[in-house]
This record gives sequence, C-alpha cells and structure tokens, in this order.
Amino acid sequence: MTTTTMSLDAMGRAAKQASRTLGALSSEDKNAALHAIADAIEAHAGAVLWANAIDVEQGRERGLPSALLDRLLLTAPRVQALADDTRKVADLQDPVGEELERRTMYNGMTLIRRRTPIGVLGVIYEARPNVTVDIAALSLKTGNAAILRGGSETLKSNLALIKAIQEGLTAAEVPNAAIQYIDNPDRALVGELLRMDRYVDMIIPRGGAGLHQRCKEQSTIPVITGGIGICHIFADATADLDRAVDIIENAKVQRPSVCNALDTLLVHEAVAADLLPKVAERLAQSGVELRVTDAAAAHLGGFDVKPAVEGDFDQEWLGLTLGIDVVNGIDAAIAHIQAHSTEHSDSILTQTEAHATRFINEVNSAAVYVNASTRFTDGGEFGLGAEVAVSTQKLHARGPMGLEALTTYKWIGLGDGHIR
Amino acid sequence: MTTTTMSLDAMGRAAKQASRTLGALSSEDKNAALHAIADAIEAHAGAVLWANAIDVEQGRERGLPSALLDRLLLTAPRVQALADDTRKVADLQDPVGEELERRTMYNGMTLIRRRTPIGVLGVIYEARPNVTVDIAALSLKTGNAAILRGGSETLKSNLALIKAIQEGLTAAEVPNAAIQYIDNPDRALVGELLRMDRYVDMIIPRGGAGLHQRCKEQSTIPVITGGIGICHIFADATADLDRAVDIIENAKVQRPSVCNALDTLLVHEAVAADLLPKVAERLAQSGVELRVTDAAAAHLGGFDVKPAVEGDFDQEWLGLTLGIDVVNGIDAAIAHIQAHSTEHSDSILTQTEAHATRFINEVNSAAVYVNASTRFTDGGEFGLGAEVAVSTQKLHARGPMGLEALTTYKWIGLGDGHIR
Repeated sequence: MTTTTMSLDAMGRAAKQASRTLGALSSEDKNAALHAIADAIEAHAGAVLWANAIDVEQGRERGLPSALLDRLLLTAPRVQALADDTRKVADLQDPVGEELERRTMYNGMTLIRRRTPIGVLGVIYEARPNVTVDIAALSLKTGNAAILRGGSETLKSNLALIKAIQEGLTAAEVPNAAIQYIDNPDRALVGELLRMDRYVDMIIPRGGAGLHQRCKEQSTIPVITGGIGICHIFADATADLDRAVDIIENAKVQRPSVCNALDTLLVHEAVAADLLPKVAERLAQSGVELRVTDAAAAHLGGFDVKPAVEGDFDQEWLGLTLGIDVVNGIDAAIAHIQAHSTEHSDSILTQTEAHATRFINEVNSAAVYVNASTRFTDGGEFGLGAEVAVSTQKLHARGPMGLEALTTYKWIGLGDGHIR
Repeated sequence: MTTTTMSLDAMGRAAKQASRTLGALSSEDKNAALHAIADAIEAHAGAVLWANAIDVEQGRERGLPSALLDRLLLTAPRVQALADDTRKVADLQDPVGEELERRTMYNGMTLIRRRTPIGVLGVIYEARPNVTVDIAALSLKTGNAAILRGGSETLKSNLALIKAIQEGLTAAEVPNAAIQYIDNPDRALVGELLRMDRYVDMIIPRGGAGLHQRCKEQSTIPVITGGIGICHIFADATADLDRAVDIIENAKVQRPSVCNALDTLLVHEAVAADLLPKVAERLAQSGVELRVTDAAAAHLGGFDVKPAVEGDFDQEWLGLTLGIDVVNGIDAAIAHIQAHSTEHSDSILTQTEAHATRFINEVNSAAVYVNASTRFTDGGEFGLGAEVAVSTQKLHARGPMGLEALTTYKWIGLGDGHIR
C-alpha cells in the first residue's frame, strides 16, 4: 500500500494503527518477521537488481555524478548484504520492555519506568537504497511503524525492496502498514508528512544540510537533525608529532565523504614549523587540497596550497580538501571551534593533561576526542550494534544513535486504591 | 539586559556565550548563585509585591477572571516561598558531570558518555510569575542559560523578579546573560525566539494548548510539548467500587484545574448500575457537572446530568466537569482511550490482572495507572525533586520532567594515537 493507492493521511492512520500491534509483539515475533524479510529480499534479488539497473541507467542519462551513481548501485553481493544485515538486526538485543527504574513511592505505590517503542517514525532520505531495508529492520526491531520517503533517483529500487519487505511482513503475519513507502515523487508530500503530527512521532532525515534544514523549518513533529560535521583537530604544542600525522591523515583520508571526516586542522604555533610540512607531505600522497591561512602558508613553502577564503572554515568538505590555520594556544583553538564547529566531532592532540581536560569540557560537541581520530564517531565503532543516524542536536539522543534512540518510556503506577 | 536595551539576536548570542561559562561552573558555584538569588528575592520582596499589585490592578481593570487573577497574585508568603524554593533547588543533586557510561572500546580507547548541560533554553509561559524564578533556578542548577518570555499580565512582576535574579547573578559573579527576559510584549518576538536555532537549543512552552500548538508549528528548535491532559479512568467489571468512588473523586475534584485531573470516566456495563449513582452522588457534593452518554444516563435517573455532545470526549475540562460513558469491556475502553487520550495519564480500576496488564501495555500514555488516581503524574510525587514540565511527546523526556531532562550528554573518546 503506497501513495498511489492511499492518501498520505490514510497511510498515517494505518501506520498509527499498525504501531499498536507492533508494540505488543514479542521479541520472537519481531525477529521472525525480520528473518521473513531477509528471506524475501533474497527471493526478490533478481527483481531488485533489475529495478536498480533501470534507476542507474536513468541516473546516467540524467548525468548524475559517478560517486552518486555508485552510492545508488546495487550488486548481487550488496543485495545479499541487505538480507544478511536484516538477520543481524534480529540478533540484536531487543531494548523494548526493559525496566529503566522500579521503586516504591512514598505512599507505597510501585512506580516503574519501562522502555517502549516511540510509535510511528517518518524517515526521509536520499540516494542509497540500503537505507530502505536498514530503517525497516531497525523500526520493526524496536516495535515502531515507519513511513519512508526515499530519493527519486532510487524509486524503482526502493519499490522493489519495499515489495520484498511487505511480502516478509505478510509471511510473518505482521500488518503491512508497519512499513510503508511514499512512492509519489511530488516533493509537496514531504511537506505534508512533516506536518502529520497526529500520526507521526519522530522525523529522521538522512541526507544533506538542505534536507535537515527543510525538516527543521517545516516539521511540526520532533526532528532528529544531525549528520553534518565540520570536524576539527587541534594539534597542541605538546602533541606527539609522528602520531599526529597518522591521526590527521586517518581523519582526512580514510573515508573523506562522511560526516566524521576531518575538515579543519588547527596547529599550535610552537609546532607549526615542524608539523605542517610533515602533514602536507603525507596528505599530498592522497591528493588532499590544502586551504591555508597566511600563518599556515608561512610554514608550507614549496607545497602546493591554496589560500583559505571567506567561508572555508564553515565548510563541510565531504572530500579531499582540508582547511588549515595556526593558533597561538588552546584558548584560540577552542574559540575557533566554538565559532565554526557543527558540534559533531572534534579532537585535541596533546600530552598536556590540563589542555585535554579543558578541550573535553569546553568543546561542546557530540563527540570530543583526545589523541584520536574523529572518524570513531559511529554506532558500530561505539559498540551500539546499529546506527540509526548521528545526531548533532541535544535532545533525545546525541552522537551515534543505536536502537535505544528509537525507544521512549512510559511511567507505570501500580496502586491499591491510592489517592493523592 | 532585556529587549529594550538589546535586540533579541544579541540576547541569543549573549545567552550562548553565557552558557559556556555556566557549563564550566562547579556545583558549589552554581549553588552559591542560587543562594544569592534567593537572598536578592527576599531583599526585593517589597518591590516585587508593589509591581505585582500593579499587574493585579491592571488585570482587574481589564476584566481578567478571578481564577486567573489568583494565579498571578503574589503575597508576602508567596514571595518568601519563591526564595525558599530557590534554596531547595540548590540542595538538589547536580546531574551535570555524571558519567552515564565508561568502557574500553575494542581498540583500547576509553569511551565515556558524560551528562552535560543542554546550552540555552527558551521558555515561554503564561500568567504565573513563579515560573520566572522556578525556571531561572532550574536552568542555573543544570548549567543552562535561559531566555524567558512570560505573559503580559505579569510583566511588571516578572521584571521585578528578573531584577532580583540579575542582582543575585552579579553578586555571585555569574554572567547576567545567564537569565534574560524578553520584556517587549510584542508577540512577534515569540515567533523570532522560536526560530533562533543558532543560539537556542530547546523550547519549553508552559501554558495552554494554543501556545503548545504555536510552538510546534513555528519553532525550528526542538520543543517539549505537553501539559495538555485528557485523562481517563476505566472502572472495569471487577473494580472495587468503594475505592473506585474515592479514586474518581480524587482525580476529578482534588485540583480540577491541572493537567492530570480526570476528564472522562468509562464504566464497564456490568457495574454501571451500581457505580454510577455512587459516583454521581459523591461528585454532586463538589458541584461537578456530568456530561453523560445515553448509556450512562440510563443509570443516573434522578441526578442532574447533561447529555454529552460532539467533542465532549475530546475536551480537557480544567474544571468541575466530567464526561461519562459506559463500555462493554476492556477492548472498548482501550479503543476509546486510544481515540481520545492526549497520552498524558490514564488509569484502570480492576481486580483482573490480565486486564491491568493489557491496559498498561496498550494504553500508550506518559503515565498509566492501575487502581490509582491520575493525579500522581507530577515531578514531586514521582520523587524527581523538581518539575520542569510534563511532556506528552515521546522524544527526550516523557511525563514529569526533572532536572535530568534539562541535560544532554557528550561522548568522550580518550586515545593514544588511535586511528580507524
């Protein structure tokens, strides 16, 4: 059931209804549904690949960049991975039902705080079709219904995957409305979804800054914003310089297209002359373009650098570019980060404990590091088992969001005629 | 510093700056500031009472209802209570800095999840001037800056209180911008505040449904909505009828103007003939108006009742009115609640354990009760030490919000040259 056959309002109502059924399912029932979905994805692999080939072909005709085409491409091993990952979600611990607190109130009543599903999730995402399966599995695992809206570039792939998911739900006798997909590419429907607060409890955007901004602006439903990281490393006067080069290279180069990759390097003036040429030499091996201030350029004679211009330090590069500045100490480093960071991931390289402590306390980011790469901000790295998104706002969940971020709690008061 | 001397944007910037100082204060420093504020409120008691007398007089001239006038009235004991309550906040445990988790990652890095302030709170409230002091104290305790915007009915009282608060902050050497007040009654400024997401991290509306709706509609900042309770009691076939009458009376009558007071009574048809006349007799003593369906009226011959009309079961009465219906069992009761509840507080009166369990699981409200009054949904009753608001949304905090709801966390990764 999609938006060609049902209005968005009817989808919302059906999702809310389904969420009640889902909330009452046992972990076993939910896991059985996940396995049924994995089986159905395998059974539909041919159809999914066929649909994806059309998406890719149309993308090529429309002149999509090759990096984007690669992100939307599915191959037989990638489809198999979708099925395998769905089975892995079944293996995770079910957070729903956990008692977060149980105590006796002053009047003898028992008070319990119990973890429950959130209800209905609205997920709006771009290009990658794997998000369709990923979010479906994580929603189902946590007893939430979900209404999905993927990018138009992968509409056919997503619909083929949704068909498999629906078949899995049916096989497991879970209501189809548990996972629904908005198949109408009209962008106005996104605006409508963002205002369906009578049915939808939480909006998760997964995409670029524009999508997050639109959700923040238009949604009447709580939105988890995040995923945009202008990330900094500050190499202090006492940094171990050899390790610093390794960390800076790792943070910038290992996977430059992601949100926890390094964007700006700040170097203490006392080590700039030593460190900057080493960094430039190492990063040149990966073809990193350096955008440097005059103070940094002074130590980079002979290297191919560009002058940093207005806005460069407010840029999430998402590629092989690095902004560099020299600062006169920890105060200036923290001030720069407070002015330019998106409060995602920032790191200090230092052997001075007092500076590490100040950095940890005063840099108000979702993740702050001492002598480590910013690339660790990730649900898998943090051992959360799954990653729903990376939040850079401060309510509900901050940083990498695991399964628990898809739950809420209710208070349960057990009395025996108690009155106030 | 208020909106007469600074633009709202400048207030936001100053609040953000102050929040950095606040976040670094020790518990002792924050408590010293709270005591200084309490002292200043006592010292300014005369000025506060004088300002309040003008507000009350103007309210009377404008024809405000007497219940509202009472809510905005300050007396010498009420001002003293504001000072005392501020000192009590100092006595509470400081949640900031608590380590929520500490573990060693697979690669040997130490990963810590530490509780931190949220940053800057925007609080929009109506009539009661005590909220000014209350929110100032709770924000300061949790290391948050706050921008307050109270109702125009209490502008003079609020400004007198803010003056005392500012004096306390100054005495304790805490930046004045920690607690700021929007003194311009132009409602457009509320809209502006709701879109200052570059400075403000969380909006807390405290007021009626209209205010909550406006915040939800217009805010680009996460909003904690709540405080609106259409609360139900379902008296099941096996309810202890004497206790049921006590609980229903307590939930409806003890403080009818608040959000956790009873709005709708659902009675199982098997006990309707017994229970309803008892309830009607008891509630008549307090002058409660009954809005009843035909099925309920059939058992209420001789009592003064009104027929329930369209919309009565979607009404938060906030006064001495009660909607009553008769249902044929737990399924119908749960269905009625799912259709009409604002997911605040709902209770079942039953001796049937299976029904209690179903009610707890299937009624998706912030607080669900068995054999108890709905009136317990309260930060004080739940032992939270303080109450910031009662949330009926599902993200971040649900039900009564204590000090912890004014905090978030950050992830801290301690490495030794770690790369991914």
